[in-house]
Amino acid sequence: MGRVCIALGGHALLRRQSEDTADEMRKSARTGAEKVADIAAAGWEVVVTHGNGPQVGRILLQNQAARRRVPPMPLDVCVAQSQGQIGYMLQTALGDVFYERGMVRPVVTLVTLTGVQTDDPAFRHPEKPVGPFYSEREARRLAKARGYTMAPDAKGGWRRLVPSPEPRSIVEGPVIRDLVAAGVIVIACGGGGVPVIEKGPRLVGVEGVVDKDLAASILARGVDATVLLILTDVKGVYRNFGTEQAELIPALSADDARTMLEAGELGAGTMEPKVRAAVEFVEAGGEGSVIAALEDALAALGGEAGTTISEPRT
Amino acid sequence: MGRVCIALGGHALLRRQSEDTADEMRKSARTGAEKVADIAAAGWEVVVTHGNGPQVGRILLQNQAARRRVPPMPLDVCVAQSQGQIGYMLQTALGDVFYERGMVRPVVTLVTLTGVQTDDPAFRHPEKPVGPFYSEREARRLAKARGYTMAPDAKGGWRRLVPSPEPRSIVEGPVIRDLVAAGVIVIACGGGGVPVIEKGPRLVGVEGVVDKDLAASILARGVDATVLLILTDVKGVYRNFGTEQAELIPALSADDARTMLEAGELGAGTMEPKVRAAVEFVEAGGEGSVIAALEDALAALGGEAGTTISEPRT
Repeated sequence: MGRVCIALGGHALLRRQSEDTADEMRKSARTGAEKVADIAAAGWEVVVTHGNGPQVGRILLQNQAARRRVPPMPLDVCVAQSQGQIGYMLQTALGDVFYERGMVRPVVTLVTLTGVQTDDPAFRHPEKPVGPFYSEREARRLAKARGYTMAPDAKGGWRRLVPSPEPRSIVEGPVIRDLVAAGVIVIACGGGGVPVIEKGPRLVGVEGVVDKDLAASILARGVDATVLLILTDVKGVYRNFGTEQAELIPALSADDARTMLEAGELGAGTMEPKVRAAVEFVEAGGEGSVIAALEDALAALGGEAGTTISEPRT
Repeated sequence: MGRVCIALGGHALLRRQSEDTADEMRKSARTGAEKVADIAAAGWEVVVTHGNGPQVGRILLQNQAARRRVPPMPLDVCVAQSQGQIGYMLQTALGDVFYERGMVRPVVTLVTLTGVQTDDPAFRHPEKPVGPFYSEREARRLAKARGYTMAPDAKGGWRRLVPSPEPRSIVEGPVIRDLVAAGVIVIACGGGGVPVIEKGPRLVGVEGVVDKDLAASILARGVDATVLLILTDVKGVYRNFGTEQAELIPALSADDARTMLEAGELGAGTMEPKVRAAVEFVEAGGEGSVIAALEDALAALGGEAGTTISEPRT
């Protein structure tokens, strides 16, 4: 076995169309926790990361709803809150599953900061919509009052756009690595981590969101993981996805995956950053990356499901 | 030197009368961080815990304000969110101070669960007011709809009462101990930790709040701290506090402190749980506890400020 960095999709933790209650979240966390426990039980050292899209969206909405009585917190603080929220649910779910299976594995959740670069072009072109939908009038007011970048949304209404800079480092990486090496299951870098830039001697949180799969790739490198496992709601990488000729690709060389990325064969959807995260991990020296459905987690690690991306053995 | 568990008051992090903005919180966190850095620079191993009263109150208010659009999260989840929020601010403030002083000390924040007992009498008598103030009518509606215990508040209006059970264990204690022993500054057990009870094989979060000083005392034992340092907004334990004869007590034996507690000489205010936390740490084998003002932190550790509670040397 080895050391695996598992990335759980935000929707693997809060299903689409669910009622968004704490009970629903706990059920989803339980499903994810069982898959993580399967992997830990097979002997892997494990670090888990997860998305936070739906959750931080709700926290932003709560901030907005109470704005006249409680000063809204900036996005970086809201991301940290979502790490506490989701980490707590995932951690207790994992604790339950381990306990029921007679396994003793400590589980901890770390607030995690992700280093980004001041000159990242994303800061000049905020493109990622977050938080509530507004009327045009309210949107224009917010743009003026808080300096937000606001834009009409395809779903109707206006939303705030924030930058999504490239992750460069995981501030807590060395500590997480030592914990994982000591057998602790670590939940870290939730929502891609809180983005921070170095400003003189200071790490300053910025209002942006980091792609959670790209952050997982950096995290995997930072903790010396052998494998990056990206779990989502499709079976893996498809050729001709969305057509009648759709075909799951069981294995890809990093070069071939890079070629698909550059040819735009993955579309602009959510698979593109996953494949990029996977390829970059392998190019940086990782043994392999796997993109698979949540339910296939353990099989995928064994190469029996999902799409494995690795350097061809020479 | 040795290992110290530092408990920062919630109001040491968010000053009374402050405007409650993120910037104000950052300024307060910075003040606390400088004191913690002084102690770390003097060679102590450090675990930091903190209150969350004002912060979790605001999160509850935000949950209530958005209740028609986002299902409110239960209190245990809100406590976990507040750990992420405050930990993030304290952690970045500490990172800044270390960096400016040329010190290299990793700082991490852990979501922390505090074990409590199912049969704790507090569960039958919820006494701790939390969250927003309601009209009587709204209070009666909430009592019916959500099963809350509601009561009129001395400040006017009605508030929810939740249990404040005794902390018994810190679930993440062993991991925190190993981190601290490895030189990591750990922020843990924020707001007294998320209270959890063992329910069959499961750890189940409960809607309650744990006193942060009593939790700090258990945390200090769990990480094998030599000293428990409780920082607050008064200079220490006073005889005849609030009168013209008020007199700071520089040192107390655990026995004498216990006697003062039992005689009710500390009033029902916030000093009582601090002294109890301090005494219990010493009675459980800790070398000493110190209760002092935030600004006197390092001097207090050296016995030059605050009130030191210890077993008399025989």
